[in-house]
Amino acid sequence: MVENCIFCKIAKGEIPCNKIYEDNEYLAFLDINPVNKGHTLVIPKKHFRWVYDVPEQGKYWTIAQKISQEMVKKIPAMFVHAVTWGEEVHHAHIHLIPRYEDDGIIGFPDFKNKKTFSQEEMKEIAEQIGMKK
Amino acid sequence: MVENCIFCKIAKGEIPCNKIYEDNEYLAFLDINPVNKGHTLVIPKKHFRWVYDVPEQGKYWTIAQKISQEMVKKIPAMFVHAVTWGEEVHHAHIHLIPRYEDDGIIGFPDFKNKKTFSQEEMKEIAEQIGMKK
Repeated sequence: MVENCIFCKIAKGEIPCNKIYEDNEYLAFLDINPVNKGHTLVIPKKHFRWVYDVPEQGKYWTIAQKISQEMVKKIPAMFVHAVTWGEEVHHAHIHLIPRYEDDGIIGFPDFKNKKTFSQEEMKEIAEQIGMKK
Repeated sequence: MVENCIFCKIAKGEIPCNKIYEDNEYLAFLDINPVNKGHTLVIPKKHFRWVYDVPEQGKYWTIAQKISQEMVKKIPAMFVHAVTWGEEVHHAHIHLIPRYEDDGIIGFPDFKNKKTFSQEEMKEIAEQIGMKK
């Protein structure tokens, strides 16, 4: 655990999140500054700087794949982008960005399209996408 | 092979590319409209619509990981973003975008930062990053 790392704190349960998926090594939760409904972050619980620093890519990206497929089935999203940007929070994270008809998204980060949802709405969205292990 | 799919044609060798990596199932080559030096696309040779449609995520993303690590070592890039956007070409592809000090990149797609390199420069960049199997 890296001190003052917000994602380490979320992984440890010290900061709450709207959980989409969790196992012993990985956690997925809604981004609190979503660019679109259902915008999700997938992180390794152990601290790595970049996604490509995570030794086992297969399990990590298979979780991202399954969440993307759930988003298409359940929200439903037209399709889903995966983005590893990582300049703000220095703990490896995959952004999963569901896309919808006429949502106006033109790229990522998309500061013009930051969206606001109430706590209740975030909880509902997380439950809608949420996956069992 | 899907008719009129430009990435199927590149995978089959019908359209030339600046190759970074190739095996029986995957191919990586320089994007001809790079947003930064070394901007690379990693594709499955078989046609899939989205990256999350590729059944075996482990091998695919491990190739993207290794190319990212080579970019950091060899170009050298400060770090590398991975992006699956996919609205233009309908054949699964991972964008790998190397980043440099003060390169001005603020997001992806980044139409303001399209860069131009000569054929000779593209060949040199590909050789610089290029990986053996």
